Amino acid sequence: MGRLTIRRPVLRLGPDGARRRPDSLAAEEPLEIRVGGKPLSVTMRTPGHDVELAHGFLLTEGVLGSSEDVAVARYCDSVDADGRNTYNVLDVALAPGVEPPDTSVERNFYTTSSCGVCGKASLDAVRLKTRFSPAADQVSVSYRTLVTLPDTLREAQRVFDSTGGLHAAGLFTGDGRLLVAREDVGRHNAVDKVLGWALLNGHVPATGTVLMVSGRASFELVQKAVMAGVPMLAAVSAPSSLAVELADEAGVTLVGFLRGESMNVYTHPDRIS
Amino acid sequence: MGRLTIRRPVLRLGPDGARRRPDSLAAEEPLEIRVGGKPLSVTMRTPGHDVELAHGFLLTEGVLGSSEDVAVARYCDSVDADGRNTYNVLDVALAPGVEPPDTSVERNFYTTSSCGVCGKASLDAVRLKTRFSPAADQVSVSYRTLVTLPDTLREAQRVFDSTGGLHAAGLFTGDGRLLVAREDVGRHNAVDKVLGWALLNGHVPATGTVLMVSGRASFELVQKAVMAGVPMLAAVSAPSSLAVELADEAGVTLVGFLRGESMNVYTHPDRIS
Repeated sequence: MGRLTIRRPVLRLGPDGARRRPDSLAAEEPLEIRVGGKPLSVTMRTPGHDVELAHGFLLTEGVLGSSEDVAVARYCDSVDADGRNTYNVLDVALAPGVEPPDTSVERNFYTTSSCGVCGKASLDAVRLKTRFSPAADQVSVSYRTLVTLPDTLREAQRVFDSTGGLHAAGLFTGDGRLLVAREDVGRHNAVDKVLGWALLNGHVPATGTVLMVSGRASFELVQKAVMAGVPMLAAVSAPSSLAVELADEAGVTLVGFLRGESMNVYTHPDRIS
Repeated sequence: MGRLTIRRPVLRLGPDGARRRPDSLAAEEPLEIRVGGKPLSVTMRTPGHDVELAHGFLLTEGVLGSSEDVAVARYCDSVDADGRNTYNVLDVALAPGVEPPDTSVERNFYTTSSCGVCGKASLDAVRLKTRFSPAADQVSVSYRTLVTLPDTLREAQRVFDSTGGLHAAGLFTGDGRLLVAREDVGRHNAVDKVLGWALLNGHVPATGTVLMVSGRASFELVQKAVMAGVPMLAAVSAPSSLAVELADEAGVTLVGFLRGESMNVYTHPDRIS
């Protein structure tokens, strides 16, 4: 299962000519998530921490509210052409009484179509779906603490990232202690792995935490933070307009361009001291 | 429709204290793509060039092979709470005889499930789906030309990107002339807009071209290149393992870490002179 990177020869071209050398690539493989045996989604991910990934995905889709909502998660017996288990199909059995996700396409689309798909409708959908509200979270995080997060995350990353090709996400306490860091070729997957870890380790709702991501802050990343009850999301790069709107409405403190000694605070700056 | 950026106040924190100032955010809104009135997908995108986006998406999903496969593409009358058209629902009517996409979840999953979802199966799926093969493309691109592409793309970007929050994609001729550049909050969308433009302007199959992307090269971006017949994909950052595997098998030249004067060539270096 340690397929985080894959070695491969590469031709390096530069001003001094060409030379062949080995290179490490970020591993990417499809993961099919099933619920009760029924296929729900396929995502391209970096193998490893798949159980966390599935928990985080189902949490942020509104299927799970606690780790007790899952009876068991296990790899199916999917095999490749050589008869080896691919470890690329994970089946999650829900606990008795937990409503399975609706997998019909028509049903999924109906809500958005009927009200005219728009940013406002997307915000409404999150409000209807979430079990937690970060709005009342009283956590206070200092400016001094915030500026340390990118380095801490990069440090955790450096341990296993030799490829330059991975997105990172980390969950921190309000005083800057790293709880967990995960990497993935997909930015959503890195966040799902972190939030799945939180669910499995009794940190959901993630009261008093800061979620830090290596790239940009999109609507969907803010949505994931809200669904897990995270009160503060910090990104190395820019947020989108809808990310800011959702953070504003849901009571999440959204920090962007967190680099060096500075940052932009887009919403709810009152949590930063 | 010129909602590429949105102005919003932001609190800038730095070593010298805090100050409030206006900031430009990359606009993000949902786009629902329908085919013959049936919802097919919702993507979070930067508004604008939506007809190109839908064409590129349907091309790289294997629904379209030429611009003549589309009878008409137009916005539906979806309205927001204030009764204004959201321009967020685009309906594509296929020309007579063009097979509509299969939207059933079960059907979509069946192929992958039955053979054990794995990287190999993902490669096979692309081979079965594509109408074009870049493998025989004889284009020759010089090292000197390749190193100019990132600056040309950034130049095209600078014109309309003041947000720092957008992914860019550009389609170039073999001698480094920019045919089209597009930006989006989503990397796949930027590529879909570029390839949709190519479809609408008689450049598909995109023989003799280089597709350049501002970020990483994932499996899905190589897949899009293959589906449009693009023989060379260049990325500013790292490719994933499965991206390299697919490029290798499909005959696409894959260049990564194209920065300054150097680059890594992962597959089919024979096209670089």
